[in-house]
Amino acid sequence: MRPSGRNLNEMRAVSIETDVTKHAEGSCMIRIGDTHVLCTASIEDRVPPFIKGSGLGWVTAEYGMLPRSTSSRMRREATSGKQGGRTVEIQRLIGRSLRAGVDRVAMGERQITVDCDVIQADGGTRCASITGGWVALKLAVAKLMKAGDIVSDPLVSPVAAVSCGIYAGQPVLDLDYPEDSEAGVDGNFIMRGDGQLIEVQMSAEGAVFSRDQMSALLDLAEHGVRDLVDAQLKATG
Amino acid sequence: MRPSGRNLNEMRAVSIETDVTKHAEGSCMIRIGDTHVLCTASIEDRVPPFIKGSGLGWVTAEYGMLPRSTSSRMRREATSGKQGGRTVEIQRLIGRSLRAGVDRVAMGERQITVDCDVIQADGGTRCASITGGWVALKLAVAKLMKAGDIVSDPLVSPVAAVSCGIYAGQPVLDLDYPEDSEAGVDGNFIMRGDGQLIEVQMSAEGAVFSRDQMSALLDLAEHGVRDLVDAQLKATG
Amino acid sequence: MRPSGRNLNEMRAVSIETDVTKHAEGSCMIRIGDTHVLCTASIEDRVPPFIKGSGLGWVTAEYGMLPRSTSSRMRREATSGKQGGRTVEIQRLIGRSLRAGVDRVAMGERQITVDCDVIQADGGTRCASITGGWVALKLAVAKLMKAGDIVSDPLVSPVAAVSCGIYAGQPVLDLDYPEDSEAGVDGNFIMRGDGQLIEVQMSAEGAVFSRDQMSALLDLAEHGVRDLVDAQLKATG
Amino acid sequence: MRPSGRNLNEMRAVSIETDVTKHAEGSCMIRIGDTHVLCTASIEDRVPPFIKGSGLGWVTAEYGMLPRSTSSRMRREATSGKQGGRTVEIQRLIGRSLRAGVDRVAMGERQITVDCDVIQADGGTRCASITGGWVALKLAVAKLMKAGDIVSDPLVSPVAAVSCGIYAGQPVLDLDYPEDSEAGVDGNFIMRGDGQLIEVQMSAEGAVFSRDQMSALLDLAEHGVRDLVDAQLKATG
Amino acid sequence: MRPSGRNLNEMRAVSIETDVTKHAEGSCMIRIGDTHVLCTASIEDRVPPFIKGSGLGWVTAEYGMLPRSTSSRMRREATSGKQGGRTVEIQRLIGRSLRAGVDRVAMGERQITVDCDVIQADGGTRCASITGGWVALKLAVAKLMKAGDIVSDPLVSPVAAVSCGIYAGQPVLDLDYPEDSEAGVDGNFIMRGDGQLIEVQMSAEGAVFSRDQMSALLDLAEHGVRDLVDAQLKATG
Amino acid sequence: MRPSGRNLNEMRAVSIETDVTKHAEGSCMIRIGDTHVLCTASIEDRVPPFIKGSGLGWVTAEYGMLPRSTSSRMRREATSGKQGGRTVEIQRLIGRSLRAGVDRVAMGERQITVDCDVIQADGGTRCASITGGWVALKLAVAKLMKAGDIVSDPLVSPVAAVSCGIYAGQPVLDLDYPEDSEAGVDGNFIMRGDGQLIEVQMSAEGAVFSRDQMSALLDLAEHGVRDLVDAQLKATG
Repeated sequence: MRPSGRNLNEMRAVSIETDVTKHAEGSCMIRIGDTHVLCTASIEDRVPPFIKGSGLGWVTAEYGMLPRSTSSRMRREATSGKQGGRTVEIQRLIGRSLRAGVDRVAMGERQITVDCDVIQADGGTRCASITGGWVALKLAVAKLMKAGDIVSDPLVSPVAAVSCGIYAGQPVLDLDYPEDSEAGVDGNFIMRGDGQLIEVQMSAEGAVFSRDQMSALLDLAEHGVRDLVDAQLKATG
Repeated sequence: MRPSGRNLNEMRAVSIETDVTKHAEGSCMIRIGDTHVLCTASIEDRVPPFIKGSGLGWVTAEYGMLPRSTSSRMRREATSGKQGGRTVEIQRLIGRSLRAGVDRVAMGERQITVDCDVIQADGGTRCASITGGWVALKLAVAKLMKAGDIVSDPLVSPVAAVSCGIYAGQPVLDLDYPEDSEAGVDGNFIMRGDGQLIEVQMSAEGAVFSRDQMSALLDLAEHGVRDLVDAQLKATG
Repeated sequence: MRPSGRNLNEMRAVSIETDVTKHAEGSCMIRIGDTHVLCTASIEDRVPPFIKGSGLGWVTAEYGMLPRSTSSRMRREATSGKQGGRTVEIQRLIGRSLRAGVDRVAMGERQITVDCDVIQADGGTRCASITGGWVALKLAVAKLMKAGDIVSDPLVSPVAAVSCGIYAGQPVLDLDYPEDSEAGVDGNFIMRGDGQLIEVQMSAEGAVFSRDQMSALLDLAEHGVRDLVDAQLKATG
Repeated sequence: MRPSGRNLNEMRAVSIETDVTKHAEGSCMIRIGDTHVLCTASIEDRVPPFIKGSGLGWVTAEYGMLPRSTSSRMRREATSGKQGGRTVEIQRLIGRSLRAGVDRVAMGERQITVDCDVIQADGGTRCASITGGWVALKLAVAKLMKAGDIVSDPLVSPVAAVSCGIYAGQPVLDLDYPEDSEAGVDGNFIMRGDGQLIEVQMSAEGAVFSRDQMSALLDLAEHGVRDLVDAQLKATG
Repeated sequence: MRPSGRNLNEMRAVSIETDVTKHAEGSCMIRIGDTHVLCTASIEDRVPPFIKGSGLGWVTAEYGMLPRSTSSRMRREATSGKQGGRTVEIQRLIGRSLRAGVDRVAMGERQITVDCDVIQADGGTRCASITGGWVALKLAVAKLMKAGDIVSDPLVSPVAAVSCGIYAGQPVLDLDYPEDSEAGVDGNFIMRGDGQLIEVQMSAEGAVFSRDQMSALLDLAEHGVRDLVDAQLKATG
Repeated sequence: MRPSGRNLNEMRAVSIETDVTKHAEGSCMIRIGDTHVLCTASIEDRVPPFIKGSGLGWVTAEYGMLPRSTSSRMRREATSGKQGGRTVEIQRLIGRSLRAGVDRVAMGERQITVDCDVIQADGGTRCASITGGWVALKLAVAKLMKAGDIVSDPLVSPVAAVSCGIYAGQPVLDLDYPEDSEAGVDGNFIMRGDGQLIEVQMSAEGAVFSRDQMSALLDLAEHGVRDLVDAQLKATG
């Protein structure tokens, strides 16, 4: 029934390749089916003004899509003079989600910026960015711990994300682009490795949903996130 | 236990004053406690390029805060040269929510822009904007129907919104500013008059939540939205 | 002869409602006929760089129009990325005018920002902003004096403004929008309570005027400003 | 008493050199003492959207200062990303003033853009721009008439401008920069060749003025404008 | 003598991997040592306004660097609101260079946009972009020819580029980042496969060079471009 | 054969008028035929952040064109919100070129900004800007030396520039606008007074060139620069 032939509760193939660029403190290429996102984590000693002197750390994120990551070429945001509304929403979500898995006291007064750049898009780029972003963050933190700059691990739990939606009347896991563009209801579920929820975003463009449907999607999401966390832990060894 | 002395499941006082400006086709001032939002609906014959010639209508929204709607003065977005990320997120949410209650075929090829300007803020401005925005939209549509420009009512159901959160460990309904700035978990629940969900946004800054907590907040939200819909229907009566 | 049926030297109804928002140190809603402007005054301890350390105070103003304050919806300046030329001109005028009534030594090294936001426009918004802005300023200063932060009153005289113009060949007081859009010559007259002039701006789009006509408009303006100052004093009582 | 040793009612030396660039349809370099402004008039067949098809012409103006036209180097507006408030005010004034001397029907549906670029500034640049701008406009119109593109002269009267102010307690004509920066009250007076007024802008930064003082400045301005119109007529011969 | 141990006339390892993204009509990842650039070519039916209706084609280019392609993180151009001067210079160069190898009549009235995004930078990114950009362009053109949309091959010759410079007093081929940041003189040489020159840019920051040195660099460049053209031809087979 | 009737190796008339504005520390109007550029040099005590405390000086440049310096009116960059790509390229080139003639240690920790504003354009404005810019720089430095602020002359050699190109199949010196817009190949040659090269930029829009042609253009350029340096030395005498 799904365009890809997958089962309703079947994720696309997940692969996480680490240390893909020589400059970043942490990096990975995450591939969720045909969605490929390059995630890098960059450590800086300065923190944003509003926490200066607090001793707390900060994790922030930026998101971008290469102009031809999509089926037809998109205008480059650098030429249009600003980041669009969708980009701003997504990068705020990534940052907020990753911070939910961080002990900011243990991290110390430094900032880690996670850049998520979509090389190829086929649906679910924001979820892939969160999942891959956590891997890059983990690798950067590992470097700090190895160097003795951080003593106790500030990453309290893995953070991963998956989208689910109602496609052709059925709840399905991990929407790809053909499904995403048809689904009346879709949601992004960001969770920790222990199953606790960090963020739930369900929305219906031109449709509505019931509490039962919501519950069915949450079941799928819990299932998907378990697989993603396994892949994260394997990648960060 | 709540700073305002309200019960856990008690909304603030709700008032909706209609026809508050002489120019707009529909308008109201919605007051949810000390949160006051002026909502106007403006009808235009042109539609966005992507639906030109489709025969479908469009509802969009813009959101703003007066510089001194807040406790300390905010910089005016017109002087900083762009709308901030939070503004963009909110106005996209308002538009998406209102469209979920609209039959765009019945509406005909026209656009209605709902402007939500916060005169005084005390938490929950985006939810008040959606609830008040629907009233302004309803009044503008009524004018079109009275003039015979629209034959069958395109507003399939009222759309209203309320925030709930975990405050001091307890699920509470309709967060005011002091609660909102302390709550570890908060959510916005946008629903139709028939109880169907349009959008759920739950997020935890520096915290997590369980499915049980999520369920408790949904119960509160359903209760609150019922009251809001009553107020909407009375106002547009 | 006037569209509104007013006499040539008759102002519209003036009302000034004070303390209309709970956050601002001073605030009022001024209504000059159907022109409604919300004015707030915000006290800040910092001053602009060019007077830092001088011991002098500063009064500045910002001006905005809600998108549907006008007959047809205007584009929001926050979305067009900058304040238009008209906005910039008006807010510079408001600030300059209010400063002419202030003893900046007595004020002490602090800044008061007066925000004038047009809720509903029907001609004369800049003059209403100045007149209402002075009331908001006065209330904020009163708060500072009550708290003992300022000892001697820095407001040396009320500042009020009115527009006059040549409409259908006749000098008329307090142009409303239908008159303003037809008048060949119009002017804004900003005065102090003692009748001294602060600023005179007369301009003729596609027309000219004589010194005699200028004198007639000044007579009308003096008359109108006296009424406005009475209303200001009553409001700030 | 004046820093320059001039009499109270004495203008600086005025010179107007025409046809100073080979590309513009009309051009002049106007020198009022040490204030030098290059004015060019450019004819275009298109008009702004709001008068398209009306048969009417349009005159508009732009104003700029070279970065080192001033005593200390100013930031180039092209690098700061926008024209400042003062620039916008001035170019709107120049356009409005020039239009007051134009019969837009006789002009035909075309636009003439007058660019005023300050090469060297010593006070009074906006007045010099208007006076020189009219000369450039006149020369461009002459070219259109000679070519038979316009039959009856649309320039009904010369337009010229001068500043006057209260300096050291005395009304003085044609303020130079040292006077301008000290004057408590100053005004710009834009007039036609026949003595009719087009625009009067009097303002007092941190001061006030009486109707008698206003009258004295107007007397001076009438005197100065007569001299400027003589220079304009001689230059356009 | 070179930090990398290479001979003076030795290029870094060159690899060109084609068809690396599923959406673009042509794509490659070019790796010149540790400089990795993703090049995509996107075909569009519209052309820029200035050649509309001419029957001629157009090739244009855009260039970007991922924020962590560099040793320390760069600010994302989309957030700073504009492309920097260096970016603009480079993308203009890439477009101009590629057009020099194109028969725009044979191409037909369509546009191909070549996007060059630097994944990892180690010197010579603009030259790698040109060389890889030509490969992406070639693959896109091949697709058009295969589909019969273009009949005769518009790519008259390969276009490739290499940088050379004076490092430690010696002319060297293909500067990597450590060399580039030390070289007093460096140049970019863009050539066609037949050895003809398209563009030469030699510059000396804080130094000068003689005609003899220029000649030595040209000799090296001719040698390097021959190798690059071999790699291009092998990749596009 | 040339539109102007000049010989292949003949420059246009060169004139350099110095001290043309009263405010700038150094200034000149350079006229190369009908190309007229006003160059000013402004001394500032502050340097850019990246050399603060180094004891080194900095020379930078900005470039602009008056809107009607060209045959048809150009949009003012201040109104389009940014400097175009061509402007940015040119001003970076001017700054880089001038710095190649400066001993930044001898200059001391100060900045000189050279502004080049094109009053009238007829081809070769960037070369005229460099040649005239050096004269303005020289005059500003002379003022610093006379005042004893600099002891040893930091200007090690004059810097001048000329364009050459292949026009109608022939190498020609100093392209004017009609030639420039037709030439298949053109180049800018920036040299020091001693004949050493600072920058060579040769490019072919839709054409290619051989090493022999490149050599012929260099011969012409050396010849032209000698004349320009003579004019520079005479002007700064």
